[in-house]
Amino acid sequence: MDYEELERELIHLRRDFHAYPESAWLEFRTCSLISRRLEALGYNVKSGLEVIDTASVMGRPSEEVIARNIQRALSQGADPGQLTRLQGYTGLTAELDTGRPGPVVALRFDMDCVEVQEDTSSSHRPEREGFSSVNTGLCHSCGHDAHVSIGLGVAEALMSERERLRGKVRLIFQPGEEGCRGAYAMMMKGVVDDADYFMAMHIGMGVPSGVFVLNAAGWLATAKIDAEFSGVPAHASASPEKGRNALLAACTATLGLHSIAPHSGGNMRINVGTLNAGTGRNVIADHAAMRIETRGETQEVAEYAYSRAVEVLKGSAMMYGVDVDISKAGEGTTSEGSPELVRVAGEAVRELGIFGRVEESSHAGASEDATWFMRRVQSHGGQAVYFGLGSDITAPHHNGRFDVDEAVMIDGVRALAAITERLMS
Amino acid sequence: MDYEELERELIHLRRDFHAYPESAWLEFRTCSLISRRLEALGYNVKSGLEVIDTASVMGRPSEEVIARNIQRALSQGADPGQLTRLQGYTGLTAELDTGRPGPVVALRFDMDCVEVQEDTSSSHRPEREGFSSVNTGLCHSCGHDAHVSIGLGVAEALMSERERLRGKVRLIFQPGEEGCRGAYAMMMKGVVDDADYFMAMHIGMGVPSGVFVLNAAGWLATAKIDAEFSGVPAHASASPEKGRNALLAACTATLGLHSIAPHSGGNMRINVGTLNAGTGRNVIADHAAMRIETRGETQEVAEYAYSRAVEVLKGSAMMYGVDVDISKAGEGTTSEGSPELVRVAGEAVRELGIFGRVEESSHAGASEDATWFMRRVQSHGGQAVYFGLGSDITAPHHNGRFDVDEAVMIDGVRALAAITERLMS
Amino acid sequence: MDYEELERELIHLRRDFHAYPESAWLEFRTCSLISRRLEALGYNVKSGLEVIDTASVMGRPSEEVIARNIQRALSQGADPGQLTRLQGYTGLTAELDTGRPGPVVALRFDMDCVEVQEDTSSSHRPEREGFSSVNTGLCHSCGHDAHVSIGLGVAEALMSERERLRGKVRLIFQPGEEGCRGAYAMMMKGVVDDADYFMAMHIGMGVPSGVFVLNAAGWLATAKIDAEFSGVPAHASASPEKGRNALLAACTATLGLHSIAPHSGGNMRINVGTLNAGTGRNVIADHAAMRIETRGETQEVAEYAYSRAVEVLKGSAMMYGVDVDISKAGEGTTSEGSPELVRVAGEAVRELGIFGRVEESSHAGASEDATWFMRRVQSHGGQAVYFGLGSDITAPHHNGRFDVDEAVMIDGVRALAAITERLMS
Amino acid sequence: MDYEELERELIHLRRDFHAYPESAWLEFRTCSLISRRLEALGYNVKSGLEVIDTASVMGRPSEEVIARNIQRALSQGADPGQLTRLQGYTGLTAELDTGRPGPVVALRFDMDCVEVQEDTSSSHRPEREGFSSVNTGLCHSCGHDAHVSIGLGVAEALMSERERLRGKVRLIFQPGEEGCRGAYAMMMKGVVDDADYFMAMHIGMGVPSGVFVLNAAGWLATAKIDAEFSGVPAHASASPEKGRNALLAACTATLGLHSIAPHSGGNMRINVGTLNAGTGRNVIADHAAMRIETRGETQEVAEYAYSRAVEVLKGSAMMYGVDVDISKAGEGTTSEGSPELVRVAGEAVRELGIFGRVEESSHAGASEDATWFMRRVQSHGGQAVYFGLGSDITAPHHNGRFDVDEAVMIDGVRALAAITERLMS
Repeated sequence: MDYEELERELIHLRRDFHAYPESAWLEFRTCSLISRRLEALGYNVKSGLEVIDTASVMGRPSEEVIARNIQRALSQGADPGQLTRLQGYTGLTAELDTGRPGPVVALRFDMDCVEVQEDTSSSHRPEREGFSSVNTGLCHSCGHDAHVSIGLGVAEALMSERERLRGKVRLIFQPGEEGCRGAYAMMMKGVVDDADYFMAMHIGMGVPSGVFVLNAAGWLATAKIDAEFSGVPAHASASPEKGRNALLAACTATLGLHSIAPHSGGNMRINVGTLNAGTGRNVIADHAAMRIETRGETQEVAEYAYSRAVEVLKGSAMMYGVDVDISKAGEGTTSEGSPELVRVAGEAVRELGIFGRVEESSHAGASEDATWFMRRVQSHGGQAVYFGLGSDITAPHHNGRFDVDEAVMIDGVRALAAITERLMS
Repeated sequence: MDYEELERELIHLRRDFHAYPESAWLEFRTCSLISRRLEALGYNVKSGLEVIDTASVMGRPSEEVIARNIQRALSQGADPGQLTRLQGYTGLTAELDTGRPGPVVALRFDMDCVEVQEDTSSSHRPEREGFSSVNTGLCHSCGHDAHVSIGLGVAEALMSERERLRGKVRLIFQPGEEGCRGAYAMMMKGVVDDADYFMAMHIGMGVPSGVFVLNAAGWLATAKIDAEFSGVPAHASASPEKGRNALLAACTATLGLHSIAPHSGGNMRINVGTLNAGTGRNVIADHAAMRIETRGETQEVAEYAYSRAVEVLKGSAMMYGVDVDISKAGEGTTSEGSPELVRVAGEAVRELGIFGRVEESSHAGASEDATWFMRRVQSHGGQAVYFGLGSDITAPHHNGRFDVDEAVMIDGVRALAAITERLMS
Repeated sequence: MDYEELERELIHLRRDFHAYPESAWLEFRTCSLISRRLEALGYNVKSGLEVIDTASVMGRPSEEVIARNIQRALSQGADPGQLTRLQGYTGLTAELDTGRPGPVVALRFDMDCVEVQEDTSSSHRPEREGFSSVNTGLCHSCGHDAHVSIGLGVAEALMSERERLRGKVRLIFQPGEEGCRGAYAMMMKGVVDDADYFMAMHIGMGVPSGVFVLNAAGWLATAKIDAEFSGVPAHASASPEKGRNALLAACTATLGLHSIAPHSGGNMRINVGTLNAGTGRNVIADHAAMRIETRGETQEVAEYAYSRAVEVLKGSAMMYGVDVDISKAGEGTTSEGSPELVRVAGEAVRELGIFGRVEESSHAGASEDATWFMRRVQSHGGQAVYFGLGSDITAPHHNGRFDVDEAVMIDGVRALAAITERLMS
Repeated sequence: MDYEELERELIHLRRDFHAYPESAWLEFRTCSLISRRLEALGYNVKSGLEVIDTASVMGRPSEEVIARNIQRALSQGADPGQLTRLQGYTGLTAELDTGRPGPVVALRFDMDCVEVQEDTSSSHRPEREGFSSVNTGLCHSCGHDAHVSIGLGVAEALMSERERLRGKVRLIFQPGEEGCRGAYAMMMKGVVDDADYFMAMHIGMGVPSGVFVLNAAGWLATAKIDAEFSGVPAHASASPEKGRNALLAACTATLGLHSIAPHSGGNMRINVGTLNAGTGRNVIADHAAMRIETRGETQEVAEYAYSRAVEVLKGSAMMYGVDVDISKAGEGTTSEGSPELVRVAGEAVRELGIFGRVEESSHAGASEDATWFMRRVQSHGGQAVYFGLGSDITAPHHNGRFDVDEAVMIDGVRALAAITERLMS
């Protein structure tokens, strides 16, 4: 591999993805361009309904929004053929089968952006250098543009070494990591069911450029809950008794949710982030929508929080004689890196000699749905790990001024390639 | 009749009952003495389980309290034989059957006191003249002592005129009018099922001595609700997730109850009067008890308030995973005086010539469970009315300084006797 | 007057106003065209800051919205000169001074539309006949288009009779009657301070065509309250203690507002109609906006409800350490028609002989801010009245299918002209 | 020392104290008997107002309760002279000054019982052997009877060795450790201001007989809050607007308290343990009393919880127009054992050779107000430690069937004496 050439390519790719950020389940341009490129490289690509279990999908926008975004993607350079294959569902796997017996190694990359308005001041490099987001209110301020580029770089690197490898490597490009929306449906479709090794990696996360973290742990289990209360409207002055007040039910639920008792088994977090209810000042509100999040330090704590939240929502609805529709808009679990894989990865990365420091572990404190893949692989005896790729950043993740140190991308590619090669030798 | 002699007797009786006030369902002394007296006069008395439908009883104390009060009553001069007949349930009817065909006329008198501490200053006549309450925390500060005396006076008056009457007269002495606890169970036992006429009367109520009100109306329908939440205790610091918090459920219910939407059909009132919950500062409360009241200007409004209250209580329990036991501790309905009976009563009372003023109607704004008797009688084609007997009073009803003008009792007897005689002629 | 010609004109005018509905404080086209027409007729017109007390203005949109609507009005045919005179504030008075001594008679007409989407099916006459609303989301579905036309008709009728009149007549065209936003600021500017008589009239209101109501009463006093809570955002999982939760404050306030105790002085209504709070699922909400309404059967009840609401809002803010900004977006009071003016109007209307039925009074049960003018006029010894002009309607007021019976407009003009002439003779 | 003789004495003493348990600030019998005994031994005793800063007292009962308990204590064998010296405030220090230069060593023993009803079945040793509690509802089920006995044993042991010691030893007998009520006021009076070393010890706590814990840590900082809401009563049906509802304020506060956001700095606990409000079903409640507890893993977290709780209480009161009286009924802080003192104590205890196992540390997870003494001593450069004395127990602490293994008391005496002697050599 000519890593200097590849580095220039990664930067070019990253800036293209950065300019066209797409949020969860709407990564039509991104997904179609990845598919085209990986097929061109010689990978066997499966995408859309081939890799998504629709019954397990969480937090996907309405069909109307989907349709609008397919048009938007086409107008922004999506590949029409690849896009059609998706049948409305983003996500793909790309497999290289060496033909030789050996392990199945899966790597996960996430494609979606966050719903943040990118900074437009000239001090922000993407703006200054002309690759800032053209999609209003959307921005790759979590670094998934870099993840996608790294994934494509790893694909090139491994293909160039394919004659020296044994077994299969499978690159997973996942939709909707933000809000823990996409991994579960791919996991349920079975994309890691035969994997012996699973690896995921995140850029940044408080770790500076030059550092590689072997075992990023401490992901909180989480559920993202959407609750919609439906009541009966009535004139608040003329016939208040005819109403069924969805706004009061939602307010009562909110206080109940924030009052759920803590758990001795670990930290717990519950938040009602948004509440929108009612139509007019003098009308008893017949509709209220809440976006809620529960988190737990352990799966047990998270399940307690979720089941109590459902009780609270249902009880509140009953109190006010309204209906409540509760749906999961996302879900993540906890994970632990497999010690043997951590050890092997450490050897490979240290041997590379390109990182200033290799750390054993870090504590995330956020949520991540690659944990579903990790659990599944470990549940059938495989090994799984989550790496951290240090990068200096210009602002916190999810901030409109966030930018990564593009120079670390090539190091990430080399690390993942080296570890994979060691596993497949 | 020698009304001067009777007046002295009424005052003597009233002062005796005043000294031994008994609250709802505990009127053992009062009831046994009335029974003895009316049997002595020649009335056919039924009492206890003969006149109470136990399945319909509301707000009766525990058997332990009943047993203690039977002993108390015996020690205060109750008639042992009559008391035994009651089998623990106060209430009686006393009938005079003339043997001649004619209407059935029912009159209702209530026997219970209120839970108020009587004033002990010498400026309060009962204290000064030595007939104030000997039962701590209990006081006849609603005038039912006068009602009982009037009932006994009416019994004497009618018995002395029995040869001139046709049909039957039935005197109903009801337990637990306070909190609307006693009438319903007597009504359900059928004590007015054959009544052609029903009359009840209250002393005072904002009307001065010398005035007789023919049609006291405006009673609010009401339900008295007891709610008990039962959860699971837990150490609030060490294992909060193991608790099921009855205190939080009760607080949520309280806010929900006070938030029940008003009704366009008439005034509505809801009150959580008392809330007692929890055992210790550092224990998640596993018990909470609430005493609640709903009222409505119409039966429809009252039923709306009650059914919404039950929804709120059940939903709150569901929210916190606790159980709730909801029971009615009392209930009253609305009523309207029958116009023809009001007219006839007006003729009779005006003819007596003993009242300075006879008023057509008054508006109560409180609740009264004689309304159940009125509804039942009217429902089978009978006529019913509620009178007001004016009396100067020394303090508002239910106040520890309340005292009536004893001189009006004899006028009340004469009015009721005169109206009854007119109906039975 | 040629009333047949005038009727055609009224219909033409009403359909023009109907096509260009403008909501509260944005009636720039409507107001400028009325001004031009009345000046042309010979009335002395005052408008904008001449008739509005800016310190008393309630519920006026932001200056940005004002500016945008001025442009919109110009593009829809507003009179540029008249519009400029307004200085951004809609509202006008038009006076005819006979020069002869006599009373000052004021008539109020309201100009604003409601925020309702007009029906677009061909069964709806405005759509079928091509005069439906061109302003999306706005519709004259309360009949103020007819009120404006009637006002212009009355102006013509009175001007044609000016030689026979004594005193002055003042036509008041008010902004923002919906939500009780506009009358108060005109009243505070003094536009009825010298009025001996005040009259207002509403079309429809449940009364059919051919009926005239002399005394439309029962307006509820009301306050429209906007509350905005401002807190501090924080990551709900990483640093929850750093947030100040505006959403929780608003939910607590909502339960508190709906729990305000009823008032024995008359009906009371409180409603939180809308609540919008928060930005993201995992962010502690730093903002919450509520639209609230309080109403009372009497001014005392309304003031109690309002002052308690303010207490609740401030206390909730304090509980959660957030700020709350409370503003009145509208306000109305109660009123009673002056008996002598009702009598005189009855004579005049019956003498006209154009109504099938003349009713003494009706009970509104809604709110109306002409009540401020009525109170002010009566407070200095004048007389005031609110008429009802019956009209068959195709759907309830504030419904997108609402349409009036245009034939009643000319009768409304003749009634108001006749009453005014009688007062000014 | 004859430790066999002393052991018999300790058991005798402990059973006497066990039979006469006294709760916080009411330890009049206990305190007077300790004073008498220590003076007899030759200690210089200070007690009552000499050792209590009254301005810092928390959670002390009313003067009426104090007076009643002084009489009760006298009737149960309190020393009248010592009792009089207390001036109503329990607590004492007993000092032995060797007259030789050396360190000041303070040891803390707590005297109060808990409000638990002792088990009366014969399987419970205190009942079976005749030394169970004679004070209804009170029981030494936390082991402070053993602590007092150990303290007296230590006093004897040290006095017998006084010739070999240097410096001063001060024995602190503290009132009201339960609910963290007593230590703060003694600390504020300065009883450890000159201490170079401070030691406290607890029996049991999940550690079996034969084990000594050198550094019992993990005490949660806590505040015990009493809140009393005072409103205005009113008839809930006749004049609801006249009431100021303390019950609604308390319910709102309860939901607000349980909704206080968690803290990223460590575990936090908030509990409303009891709520008692209202007088009658149809009366708007004018009074509500809450017992609340806040806890935090660090002092910062505890202070956050406390200050937010106060905000919530005050805001709730404002919402409902009622007053709230907030008082601290107790308070504890966190602590860490001083490493050097832990080390020295370890040497001394291991050298004794009487414990089967000596553990370095344990994690408490409860609260303890000896932490105030520890903080104060460490703040001026002294060293402090909290020991655990293992004991088999028959039921959890604060349970009516709790009993200790009396055999461990003598080991506790020997350990404390040995450590103290080492420090004072």
